[in-house]
Amino acid sequence: MDGNRRVTIAVIAREAGVSVPTVSRVINGRADVSPRTRQRVEELLNRYDYQRRSTSVRSTTGLIDLVFNDLDSPWAVEIIRGVEDVAHAAGVGTVVSAIHRRTSSAKLWLDNMRARNTEGVIFVTSTLEPPLQAELRRLNIPVVIVDAAGVPPQEAPTIGATNWNGALRATEFLIGLGHERIGFIAGPPQLLCSRARLDGYRTALDAAGIALDDRLIYPGNFYHEAGFTGGGRLLDLPRPPTAIFAASDQMALGVYEAVRQRGLRVADDISIVGFDDLPEVRWCSPPLTTVRQPLAEMGLLAARTVLRLAQREKIESPRVELATELIIRDSAAKPRA
Amino acid sequence: MDGNRRVTIAVIAREAGVSVPTVSRVINGRADVSPRTRQRVEELLNRYDYQRRSTSVRSTTGLIDLVFNDLDSPWAVEIIRGVEDVAHAAGVGTVVSAIHRRTSSAKLWLDNMRARNTEGVIFVTSTLEPPLQAELRRLNIPVVIVDAAGVPPQEAPTIGATNWNGALRATEFLIGLGHERIGFIAGPPQLLCSRARLDGYRTALDAAGIALDDRLIYPGNFYHEAGFTGGGRLLDLPRPPTAIFAASDQMALGVYEAVRQRGLRVADDISIVGFDDLPEVRWCSPPLTTVRQPLAEMGLLAARTVLRLAQREKIESPRVELATELIIRDSAAKPRA
Repeated sequence: MDGNRRVTIAVIAREAGVSVPTVSRVINGRADVSPRTRQRVEELLNRYDYQRRSTSVRSTTGLIDLVFNDLDSPWAVEIIRGVEDVAHAAGVGTVVSAIHRRTSSAKLWLDNMRARNTEGVIFVTSTLEPPLQAELRRLNIPVVIVDAAGVPPQEAPTIGATNWNGALRATEFLIGLGHERIGFIAGPPQLLCSRARLDGYRTALDAAGIALDDRLIYPGNFYHEAGFTGGGRLLDLPRPPTAIFAASDQMALGVYEAVRQRGLRVADDISIVGFDDLPEVRWCSPPLTTVRQPLAEMGLLAARTVLRLAQREKIESPRVELATELIIRDSAAKPRA
Repeated sequence: MDGNRRVTIAVIAREAGVSVPTVSRVINGRADVSPRTRQRVEELLNRYDYQRRSTSVRSTTGLIDLVFNDLDSPWAVEIIRGVEDVAHAAGVGTVVSAIHRRTSSAKLWLDNMRARNTEGVIFVTSTLEPPLQAELRRLNIPVVIVDAAGVPPQEAPTIGATNWNGALRATEFLIGLGHERIGFIAGPPQLLCSRARLDGYRTALDAAGIALDDRLIYPGNFYHEAGFTGGGRLLDLPRPPTAIFAASDQMALGVYEAVRQRGLRVADDISIVGFDDLPEVRWCSPPLTTVRQPLAEMGLLAARTVLRLAQREKIESPRVELATELIIRDSAAKPRA
């Protein structure tokens, strides 16, 4: 390993012209350092890519951190449930935070987290800006990323779902029912998972010899409103699709509402398939056929992984995708003759 | 106060014939005490109703605990959001746990919580069995209860919603539209909030001079299935109601499905009103008219209260009910002529 080549606090202190305890105070985010000194030390820490040295096994503090962008979706509670299950059984508390994509909020979280000396951090989709990432890295706390928004910035393990396979399977299912004009409402293009779902849809059409019609693809953003608007656009086409595959359940429910407002019926008049399998979609009317993302299982695995990393165990595979599964309910049927 | 009359550890130790540190170990849940000694000491602690003495202001550990029965409802994420908002801003981490109504799980939570020396605990509907309550009491950690299932066992502050008012307002609304046969699907009778909602429904009918018809009341349990079954029973009556008020949103969505399966339409054929205003009901088809419980605000207030108690501040009112509000969407209309 490169452990021997890593810079020590003493080297940083000498080069910055300050004492070793001062460098420690900067690393630990303490307030009692002058801004100029802090800046000089931080520059050196970054230049040398300093990481806190780990003891063989860290003393356990009984806490892990679970960080979301927002706590505004039923999606979140599924992940929390999985993480809490594992953590609780291990005698570890799960500290849940939302950083709202704001630097100030992320910075506050980082300071709080440092003070409570957490054993590991699970990020859900959320990312930190580079300066905060550098701070986190210096603390040498294990990090696991669930459903990474893009290519993860560090060597942190990631846990996702097989988005491409799920979209492929859903589209194949609609083709199998006899649909040839299948609309698609996409997720935000900057997210990896969105691109994988779009590609799965395209590949299934291609494999069935159905030509791709760009007019049947609406650029959505995973939220309900996009499903409502996009579904409406597709339904109002001169030759509307006979089925719509929405890349999130919330968008699928938006399509439901567009269908209802046009006096049409889901399944009878137009088939709809979603993606996620949020708990509430089995309760919508009709119950939604959708691609299940194993959110709670992703949470379980993330918690297990971060606890193993906290014990300095080796992780075999840093990139894990759990299987998605098509859950067939009542929102898709054969197209009308 | 009765502080002077409270028993000290020294008294307990003398009476149990053990050392003062041994009594401390029992209070702090340590393992290194023989079962017989532990039992004798616990009996004395209970007999004297021992509580750990508080210093004027506890040293802050930067953590509060938020305890649910289960993390299986979108309901939970709303409360977490409110609590996390306040805690995060105060530099405090929110440890989320589920105890699944199991003694073993609650006991494990209590042990973990004790080890991390939390500043306060918020219980959401959940309750501990009397022996665990006694243990918690001894630790003298502030407790706040959100949406108390029954009359709270201790002098802990409670935060709820105006259930009776909300049900009254929803029923009045349906009466105002012209409905006279209004079905009601109730929550579990052992919960205070269920009884308040049933009473609000009854009072509104009574005030409008509409005779109560017991056949129009179905005993539910807040879950979707009860709404589906209960809604079906009411719709299949020889003289069905023209409107159904379900005491939870999940049950209201169950009624939607019962309506759909009978080839009927919500609002056009039968009006439906729910209770909760979960985020997803604005996305169901048609969007649900419902009584809003301010869940996130209840979480906010619970966090503020527990943090104030941790600072040994006085709480003015130990029983707070936040206002519910009728949110009118598209699921209720005038009865058919």
